[in-house]
Amino acid sequence: MPTILGQNQYGKAETRVVKITRDGATHHIKDLNVSVALSGAMDEVHYSGSNTNVLPTDTMKNTVFAFAKEYGIESAEQFGILLARHFVTSQEPIQRARVCIEEYAWERIETSDNTFRLTGSHEAEHSFVRTGQEARTSQITFDGEHWEVISGLKDLTVMNSTNSEFWGYTKDKYTTLHEAYDRILATMVQAAWRFNWTSDALPMPDWERSYTEAKKHLLQAFAETYSLSLQQTLYQMGSRVIDNRSEIDEVRLSLPNKHHFLVDLEPFGLENDNEVYFAADRPYGLIEGTILREGVEARIPVDHTNL
Amino acid sequence: MPTILGQNQYGKAETRVVKITRDGATHHIKDLNVSVALSGAMDEVHYSGSNTNVLPTDTMKNTVFAFAKEYGIESAEQFGILLARHFVTSQEPIQRARVCIEEYAWERIETSDNTFRLTGSHEAEHSFVRTGQEARTSQITFDGEHWEVISGLKDLTVMNSTNSEFWGYTKDKYTTLHEAYDRILATMVQAAWRFNWTSDALPMPDWERSYTEAKKHLLQAFAETYSLSLQQTLYQMGSRVIDNRSEIDEVRLSLPNKHHFLVDLEPFGLENDNEVYFAADRPYGLIEGTILREGVEARIPVDHTNL
Amino acid sequence: MPTILGQNQYGKAETRVVKITRDGATHHIKDLNVSVALSGAMDEVHYSGSNTNVLPTDTMKNTVFAFAKEYGIESAEQFGILLARHFVTSQEPIQRARVCIEEYAWERIETSDNTFRLTGSHEAEHSFVRTGQEARTSQITFDGEHWEVISGLKDLTVMNSTNSEFWGYTKDKYTTLHEAYDRILATMVQAAWRFNWTSDALPMPDWERSYTEAKKHLLQAFAETYSLSLQQTLYQMGSRVIDNRSEIDEVRLSLPNKHHFLVDLEPFGLENDNEVYFAADRPYGLIEGTILREGVEARIPVDHTNL
Amino acid sequence: MPTILGQNQYGKAETRVVKITRDGATHHIKDLNVSVALSGAMDEVHYSGSNTNVLPTDTMKNTVFAFAKEYGIESAEQFGILLARHFVTSQEPIQRARVCIEEYAWERIETSDNTFRLTGSHEAEHSFVRTGQEARTSQITFDGEHWEVISGLKDLTVMNSTNSEFWGYTKDKYTTLHEAYDRILATMVQAAWRFNWTSDALPMPDWERSYTEAKKHLLQAFAETYSLSLQQTLYQMGSRVIDNRSEIDEVRLSLPNKHHFLVDLEPFGLENDNEVYFAADRPYGLIEGTILREGVEARIPVDHTNL
Repeated sequence: MPTILGQNQYGKAETRVVKITRDGATHHIKDLNVSVALSGAMDEVHYSGSNTNVLPTDTMKNTVFAFAKEYGIESAEQFGILLARHFVTSQEPIQRARVCIEEYAWERIETSDNTFRLTGSHEAEHSFVRTGQEARTSQITFDGEHWEVISGLKDLTVMNSTNSEFWGYTKDKYTTLHEAYDRILATMVQAAWRFNWTSDALPMPDWERSYTEAKKHLLQAFAETYSLSLQQTLYQMGSRVIDNRSEIDEVRLSLPNKHHFLVDLEPFGLENDNEVYFAADRPYGLIEGTILREGVEARIPVDHTNL
Repeated sequence: MPTILGQNQYGKAETRVVKITRDGATHHIKDLNVSVALSGAMDEVHYSGSNTNVLPTDTMKNTVFAFAKEYGIESAEQFGILLARHFVTSQEPIQRARVCIEEYAWERIETSDNTFRLTGSHEAEHSFVRTGQEARTSQITFDGEHWEVISGLKDLTVMNSTNSEFWGYTKDKYTTLHEAYDRILATMVQAAWRFNWTSDALPMPDWERSYTEAKKHLLQAFAETYSLSLQQTLYQMGSRVIDNRSEIDEVRLSLPNKHHFLVDLEPFGLENDNEVYFAADRPYGLIEGTILREGVEARIPVDHTNL
Repeated sequence: MPTILGQNQYGKAETRVVKITRDGATHHIKDLNVSVALSGAMDEVHYSGSNTNVLPTDTMKNTVFAFAKEYGIESAEQFGILLARHFVTSQEPIQRARVCIEEYAWERIETSDNTFRLTGSHEAEHSFVRTGQEARTSQITFDGEHWEVISGLKDLTVMNSTNSEFWGYTKDKYTTLHEAYDRILATMVQAAWRFNWTSDALPMPDWERSYTEAKKHLLQAFAETYSLSLQQTLYQMGSRVIDNRSEIDEVRLSLPNKHHFLVDLEPFGLENDNEVYFAADRPYGLIEGTILREGVEARIPVDHTNL
Repeated sequence: MPTILGQNQYGKAETRVVKITRDGATHHIKDLNVSVALSGAMDEVHYSGSNTNVLPTDTMKNTVFAFAKEYGIESAEQFGILLARHFVTSQEPIQRARVCIEEYAWERIETSDNTFRLTGSHEAEHSFVRTGQEARTSQITFDGEHWEVISGLKDLTVMNSTNSEFWGYTKDKYTTLHEAYDRILATMVQAAWRFNWTSDALPMPDWERSYTEAKKHLLQAFAETYSLSLQQTLYQMGSRVIDNRSEIDEVRLSLPNKHHFLVDLEPFGLENDNEVYFAADRPYGLIEGTILREGVEARIPVDHTNL
C-alpha cells in the first residue's frame, strides 16, 4: 500500500447540553456546547472499515448528557476533565481524549416591583436572559497521564475611542497609509490561555474564578494601555494575565483590527475632528501572538481551534 | 408593453456609522447600521435606464456620515427622522423615505484600582466593550406629511427554567407529543412596536427612555407570566408594553420556541428530574402575533423587516 | 382589557426533510426545509392559555414526514399544497395555512472510468453533490377556498464584467460619486414570483418546469441587458419572466448592488484599465421592485419573507 | 520582565480582489479572498510599540491589488507564491510569509437563442453566475528558502443514499444506537493537501489542473466506496488523491457526519423503507484524519486553518 494513515481523531461535535440546578426555588443554569474527539488504535477502521475499536459518536453524546446528571457541571473545565478521563480510562483502544467546550452566560432578569413585594428580591429566581457578550471556551486534553487545559474566550468586542496612535512604520513603494496620532482602536478578542495544571497530583485551579479574573485583566489591559500599535496592546493584554494569574503560563491572542476609518467630510465643507467613523468589514488587520511566562515552553498551536 | 412597474424602492443599505461624542475626557458612542430606501417618480429609470431622477445611493451614504457630524446622533429614531425628512423634502422626485437602523450597545470597561487612584472612577472614560445582547432596531417612514416609527429589538434570548406547561391541546392521527406540566420555555425575542407619534405637530416621545422601558417590560412580562402556552406569554409581553407605554399603540412579536428537550436518561438507569436538557436547533416552533391598543388599527406588516 | 389581539399565526419552522425515491438502482433526492404557519380561532390560547384549538407544532413536523412517505414529494409546490390543504380541511379552528419551503439542489457525481465499464454510465446512481448555487423557495397559502403560490429563489450571484454604465444622475451637495461608463454590475438575485393559479378548478402549472424556465429567463435577461442602471436590469429581468411564462403574473426582485470598486493603482504608477476590482461588503445599494402583468393587482408584499 | 514573546505574526486578512482578463470580447474572472501573515524581527513592536520594522497591513492590501495588475492571477497558488516571495525578499525584518487564499468559482451564463444567432455561441462572453459549490483554498508559506503549499477545498457537500453501513462497534453502558445495514452517508468535505514542491529548483505543478483532478478524485472515491464507516471512506478519499496525483504527498480531511436519521413513521401506521429522513444539525459526528504517501512526514497541522 503506497499510502499510510497519519494523525486521526473522531468524535461527536457540538452536543448542546443545558443543566438546571435547583437550590430551593432558585435555579442555576449551565449552558454548554461540548465536542469530544478521541484518538487511539484506530488503524483498522480506516483500512478495512472494522468498527471493533470504535465507540459510536452517538454514545459520546449520551455520555455527555448522563454525566451532566451523574456529576453535575461545576465548571466547563471540570466537566471536560470528567469526560476526558472517562473515555481514556474506560476504553482500551482510546489513548487520548480532547474535549472542547463553549459556554454561554446567562444573567437573571430583573423583576418588577410587584414581584419584589412578594419575594423581597429584584432578581428572578428562574428567569434568565443570555448575556450575549463573549463565548467562554475550554479545551481539555488527556493522554492517560498528563492533562492540558487551554481555556479562553471569543467574540469579545472592545474599543478605545482615543489613546491609540500608529506612525513611524516602514514605507515601501506600495505604502499610501497616512500616519495616525489619534485613532480608534477596536478589536474582537479571541484569547486562549494554558494552565500549568498538568497532573492529578497537583491542586486544581478554581476554574470559575480564574476565568472571571482572566477576562477582567484582558479588558483592563486593553483599556489602560496607551497604544502605539495593536501588537503592543496584545502583549500588554497577555502579560497582564500571566502577571496576575499564577495558574496560567501561556496566552495566545488573535486580534482582528476592526478598522474604524475617519470619514472625509471635507467635500461637504465639514471638519471631522475624530467624531464620525466608518466601521469597515473587510479587509482587516490581524495581529496574533503568544505571550509566555519566562522559562516555559509554548504549547498552544498557532491555529488553535477557538482562535 | 404587456408588463408594468409596481411598488419599488432603492437606496443604500447597511452604512456602518460610529459617532464619538466628547464630553471633556469622557467619550460617548453611538454605533449604528443605517439603511435608506427611497420611492417616488422612478418609472423612467426602470423603463429606459434614465437616471435623471436618481440620487445615487453613494450620496445617501455620504449624507448619513455628514448628518452624524452636522446634527449628532441623539437617538436612532431622531437620526432616522432627520434623514427621512431630508430626502423627501430636498429631492422633488422622492415621495417617501424609509430609514431602517440597527443599533449596537456598548458599556464602559471597569478599570483597575491603579486607574481608580488617578481618576476616582472605576468607569473607563473612553474604553468600551460591546454588550452583545440584543440589537435595537428602528424603522422610520415619511411621506412628506405623516410619520411612522416602528422600533424594536432582535436576538434577545430568554429562558424560564420552570413555570411553563403545555397540555390540553388538539390531537390528531399525527400527534405523538406528550403533555408537559413543567417544561423549559426559551425564546429569542424579535419585537417591533409602533409609536402613535405620526406628525410634527405632536410632541415627540423620549426615544431613549421609551426603548429602555419597553425592553424592561418585555423581559419582566416574560419572567412573571406563568405560561400555559407560548402564545399566552406573547400576549402578556405585548400587552405589558402597551399598558405601560402610552406612546406605543401596537406590538408585533415573533417568538421562536427554542426547544429544550428533557433527555431520556432511563437507558442509563438515571432519572431526569427536569435537570438535563438538549437544546435543539431545528425545527422550532414559531409563534407570531400582534397586540393592539383597543380601537387602533394594525399597521405593522406580518413579515416586518426585523422580525 | 385595554389591549386586543391582532393578526397571529403559529407553526413549526424549518423541518428538514430528505426524501429518497428509488427507481431500481437509480435514486432521486428531494431535500426540503419546510415551515408551516397556521391561523384561525386562536384568541383563547393568547388570552387564557387554553390550548383547546391548538394542534401542537410537533404534530406539524410529524405530518411533514408522514406526508413525504404517503404522497411523495413531486415538487415543493405540490407538497406544500398537500400540507396546506390538510391543515385547513382537517382542523376546524384553522382557517388559513401558509407553508414556506426552501429546496436545495443536488446533482449526480460523475464516476470514474472503472465504474463506467460496469454500468455504462458516468452518472452515479446514488451518489450526489449539492450544487450549492441558489436556494429555491416557495410559499403556498390556502384559506379553504383560494390558493396563492409565490415561488422564487435566493442567493443566486451573477456578474457582468462590462456593458454596465451609471451616469446622468441627480447631484446634490453630498454627491461625490464619479460617473461610470464601463463598470462591473454584480448582484445576488432574490426573486419571488406569483402564479395565477388560485383555485382547484384551474389546471395546475408544471411546477418543476416553471422553476427551471423562470430561473433561465432571469439569468438571460441579466446577461443580455446593456445596463444604464440596476433598476433597468431589474425591470428587464422581471418582465422577461412574465413575457415568457403565462402562469406567472407578478415578479418581485430584491437586488443588492454588490459593488466592485475599481482600485486606484496610480500611486503605484500603474494604470487600471478595468482589470482590478475590490469587492466590497457594506454598504451596498439595494434595488427592489415589482413587475406586473398589465391589468393584474400586486399581491407580493414589499418585505416578502424570502427577499 | 517575567513574560516573553512567543510565536507571532501579523498581516492583512481577507482582501477581496477580483481580476478581469479580457481576451477580445471574452472575459475571464479570478475572484479571490487573500490573507497575508508575516513574521520576523517583531519583538520591538510588541515590547515598546516601535513600528520601525512594521510594514503596515494597509500596504499588504495595496500590494495584493497592485500585483493583480502587474502579474495577473494565473492561479491562486502562483499568485500567493509571488506575494510571499515579495514580502520575504523585499523586507529585511520579514523572515516568513504565509498567504492564505480562498477562491470562488464562476461559470458562464448560457444565453438565449437570440444571442446565439448573433455570436454563434450559447456561452455569454462577459456574464457569469457564481457556481456556489465549494470554496477552493490555498496556503503558501515561504521562509526565504523553502516553500510549503497546502491547497484544498471546503463546504463540498456530498451524499450517498445507500451503500453505507455501521455495525460491529464497541458498546458500553451509555450505548443506545442501533446498528445500521443501509444508511445515508452525507458529509461536507473539508480537505487540505500538501504538495511536494518545496523549492524553486523543482518544476512547479500545474496548479489549476491539480485542483480539478484532486476534487474529482475526492468525489469519485466518496461515490465509489462501499462504506462500513466514515473513517474508511475518509481513508479511501485521501489515498485516491495520493495514488493519482504524484505532486501531492499528504491529505488531511475533516468530515462532519451530517446525520440523516430515518424517521420513525410507525406511530402513523407507515413503514419507512429508507425513504424519509430528518437532516439533523447538531450534534454531528466529526471524523478527521491524515493520509500520507509512504515514507513522507506529516506536516499539515491537526487544526489547519481551512479545516
